[in-house]
Amino acid sequence: MDGPVLQIGVICFILHGMVSGVPPEYLQKRKHIIDTEERQRLGGTLVLNAKEQKVNAVLMAAKRKEIELSRDTGKIFPPAISFFQAKKLIDHSAVFSIIKRMPKGGALHTHDSSITSLDWLVTNVTYRPHCYMCYTESGDVMFYFYAKPPTNTDCHWKTVASQRQASGDADRFDQQLVRNISIIVDDPSSAYPTVDAVWKKFVKYFQAVNGLLNHAPVFRDYWRQALEEFRHDNVQYLEVRALLPTTYELDGTHHGAEWALNTYRNVTREFVAEHPDFIGAKLIHSAVKFINKQAMLPNVKEAMVFLKKYPDFYKGFDLVGQEGLGKTLLYYLDDLLYPSQQNPPVYLPYFFHAGETDWEETQVDDNLVDAILLNTSRIGHGFAIHKHPQVMKIIKQRDIAVEVNPISNQVLGLVKDLRNHAAVLLIAENYPLVISSDDPAVWEATPLSHDFYEAFMGMTGEQTDLTFLKQLAINSIKYSAMNQQEKQAAMKLWQRKWDMFIDATVHQHYYIHIPGIMG
Amino acid sequence: MDGPVLQIGVICFILHGMVSGVPPEYLQKRKHIIDTEERQRLGGTLVLNAKEQKVNAVLMAAKRKEIELSRDTGKIFPPAISFFQAKKLIDHSAVFSIIKRMPKGGALHTHDSSITSLDWLVTNVTYRPHCYMCYTESGDVMFYFYAKPPTNTDCHWKTVASQRQASGDADRFDQQLVRNISIIVDDPSSAYPTVDAVWKKFVKYFQAVNGLLNHAPVFRDYWRQALEEFRHDNVQYLEVRALLPTTYELDGTHHGAEWALNTYRNVTREFVAEHPDFIGAKLIHSAVKFINKQAMLPNVKEAMVFLKKYPDFYKGFDLVGQEGLGKTLLYYLDDLLYPSQQNPPVYLPYFFHAGETDWEETQVDDNLVDAILLNTSRIGHGFAIHKHPQVMKIIKQRDIAVEVNPISNQVLGLVKDLRNHAAVLLIAENYPLVISSDDPAVWEATPLSHDFYEAFMGMTGEQTDLTFLKQLAINSIKYSAMNQQEKQAAMKLWQRKWDMFIDATVHQHYYIHIPGIMG
Repeated sequence: MDGPVLQIGVICFILHGMVSGVPPEYLQKRKHIIDTEERQRLGGTLVLNAKEQKVNAVLMAAKRKEIELSRDTGKIFPPAISFFQAKKLIDHSAVFSIIKRMPKGGALHTHDSSITSLDWLVTNVTYRPHCYMCYTESGDVMFYFYAKPPTNTDCHWKTVASQRQASGDADRFDQQLVRNISIIVDDPSSAYPTVDAVWKKFVKYFQAVNGLLNHAPVFRDYWRQALEEFRHDNVQYLEVRALLPTTYELDGTHHGAEWALNTYRNVTREFVAEHPDFIGAKLIHSAVKFINKQAMLPNVKEAMVFLKKYPDFYKGFDLVGQEGLGKTLLYYLDDLLYPSQQNPPVYLPYFFHAGETDWEETQVDDNLVDAILLNTSRIGHGFAIHKHPQVMKIIKQRDIAVEVNPISNQVLGLVKDLRNHAAVLLIAENYPLVISSDDPAVWEATPLSHDFYEAFMGMTGEQTDLTFLKQLAINSIKYSAMNQQEKQAAMKLWQRKWDMFIDATVHQHYYIHIPGIMG
Repeated sequence: MDGPVLQIGVICFILHGMVSGVPPEYLQKRKHIIDTEERQRLGGTLVLNAKEQKVNAVLMAAKRKEIELSRDTGKIFPPAISFFQAKKLIDHSAVFSIIKRMPKGGALHTHDSSITSLDWLVTNVTYRPHCYMCYTESGDVMFYFYAKPPTNTDCHWKTVASQRQASGDADRFDQQLVRNISIIVDDPSSAYPTVDAVWKKFVKYFQAVNGLLNHAPVFRDYWRQALEEFRHDNVQYLEVRALLPTTYELDGTHHGAEWALNTYRNVTREFVAEHPDFIGAKLIHSAVKFINKQAMLPNVKEAMVFLKKYPDFYKGFDLVGQEGLGKTLLYYLDDLLYPSQQNPPVYLPYFFHAGETDWEETQVDDNLVDAILLNTSRIGHGFAIHKHPQVMKIIKQRDIAVEVNPISNQVLGLVKDLRNHAAVLLIAENYPLVISSDDPAVWEATPLSHDFYEAFMGMTGEQTDLTFLKQLAINSIKYSAMNQQEKQAAMKLWQRKWDMFIDATVHQHYYIHIPGIMG
């Protein structure tokens, strides 16, 4: 609450010191409007304790300094440009260094194949025996684990080890692999002039990594490594949209969806047992929105079975893929209504992607309406939601959270300057909302910190402070798929970590070491 | 109302033809939400007559075709890219050709020195005798009319005529002059990476043209030509923010603000007398927001005098200039409160620029709050208004219109893809709003048609139709500074022109000739 106090102070100075003849009612009305707006925003009613206020002072000094640098000296403002170019600026930010250390609660919108760093994938997985690679005719890299690679394919499979050795420079080779797989380019606006263009490359990322991930031992390790990396980024909890793909062993045997589900569940249990400061993870099963109508009902039925069998971990169902090109919720409507039409009705929670589009009043855009009518528990992205006043009204009434993924929306071409992101309005009016990271590995973002930075710097005002970030963490537990008992335990665990973060920042004079603040 | 009917038709087909087991209540609820949103948007309650529906069918076929071309084949969508690059695409658009012929009512937010085409300025004004030019040390072109140019300046004045002749190619020379003065560049994102960068060039435009415009005979002709060009673009009415500068004659005499005001008023009267199908124009006096506090009160006092003396034409007061760098309304507060504090209070209507910024919760951003508290009649730009829920509430209650200038906001660096413009939300919820063009001459836009195109194509959905454009025209009269009697007469005149436009489009089978529709 430092902002408005300071601001009113400035006004008082101006009014008493310089301006004559201003009626006090004017000042009162002005203060009332600004204060009301301040309280109305996400986190606006949180009250910081004395220690939190000290941390807030450090944070806000850094925030103001970074904003002023851009606003007053013309230095590029990171949220205004592509994350591909902004990342190196953000990585030197004092605000970012605080956000990294902050316990951020949960990341509720992430995808199974894009949450563990590409670096790990290249420097760990591609170093394993039997790892093969080849280049397709269009120059895209593919990977697979073979006991003996096929020879009758267009793609000429060679071991990664041999290719690496032939290159003569293993580090450079590995960097090249990372660059080849990620969607990062120097000039995104010319490389990806439209949403379709960037999605074409985005899909190639998944084609490249899936040959690695779907190897059963890697599948297990990839999830384990994801939990490690999220925890390292001070994220306490994870919800993953998971396709539950068929995985393969070197000997040719295959595992089905339930094996993948059990792998996620077991690895998570082990991880939580080893790391009592980690809350855990839950799974949201995802079908792709490109399959025929006929193929959807079996997915829904399988979801109902899994939900019944693994209610502690398997929390619901979603459809994924490029929304603009995919089939709509309306197309699959009777399949999605199937659970609620059983006798007795089955409650299968939905977590639908909807409104991840710039095309207003189209059938794709109407996914937002169907998501609501299908009783979605949250809305994935909801980028177009501000174009739907009725949907806005309903999500506020029913407290349906929007999962906002700032960097994803930017790099996938929906918006350039994040100050123009639709969620700015949702934040200003305290709509139910969480910040997540979608597919951080694809653009080499940290698991959640970079998205928190972009939201804090680009999607709130210069006075919006630690209360916003704290509320985001609280929201991530409140709107999670955990049950009430789990949420209470999660809040306790998070609160303990939060207090430690505050203590560490205050008592250990940590702020002295934050680059750029004191210097 | 074609959109929702068609859409429900599609849904019925899907539901009855393909989808089984969908409860009718679902369909009813869905229709209710979509219909409510449709009625809720700007123009959503207008009912089109039979002839208008025919025109609407032509318009919507063209709109859908242009959207589908982009959405489904990856062709660039004009509202998504800089107007500098989009203009040539728009100029070939069938939607644009209809909008050009449509009587659009008034343009309520324009500036005195940037409303008449640069082409006219170069091919008419710079051809006049005694017109001199020079290049400053930084390479910027300057103009002035001299009986005999000064020789003791750093800028070496030469007649434009001599320079043109020396160039050997008059057409090329003139094109070069236009290019030199306008802010258009091939690659705006690299030429103008920040708002400050593009404003630097924008200010140079005014420096270049003011030497021409402030020559008294040119001043008169420039306004006359502006009225011609707006009328030619099927705009019936104009409100101009005017600085009322000192103007000069060739013999060294100067005229003050009142001369400029009378010139605007007299030329407008003559023009309306000659063109009874033109409604007229009004003036909003503007001071610049860079002057010292001490200098503001005389401006306000002068405004009070002019308002009393010329109530038919001089309609109020505003402050202009780059909002991010300028002084705030708060800074000038007691001066701006001065009229209301007289005994008896004087009502000086304000038409404040506010919220033309991407920087949230700053003193500049708070101009929106002060504009409201100072009882502004309209808000110029209001680009940041969606970040202020209290201000939003008040403008709806008090019916204060926001003057949205889509192309200006884009080329001056606030937003790239106009589908992300904040006014999308204002339109979806039918906030009081008009579309204007700000400074069309600076980026070689038509007086109003290009901005109408961008709003219609980029800031509304695929189903939003002629009712939106008709409501914009009606709003431009409703929210104008005309008095009630004038508004009634204006509505009649506009309605007559509108009916003629509808008749011409229907009866003369005009649509056959619209490029791209029938072919």
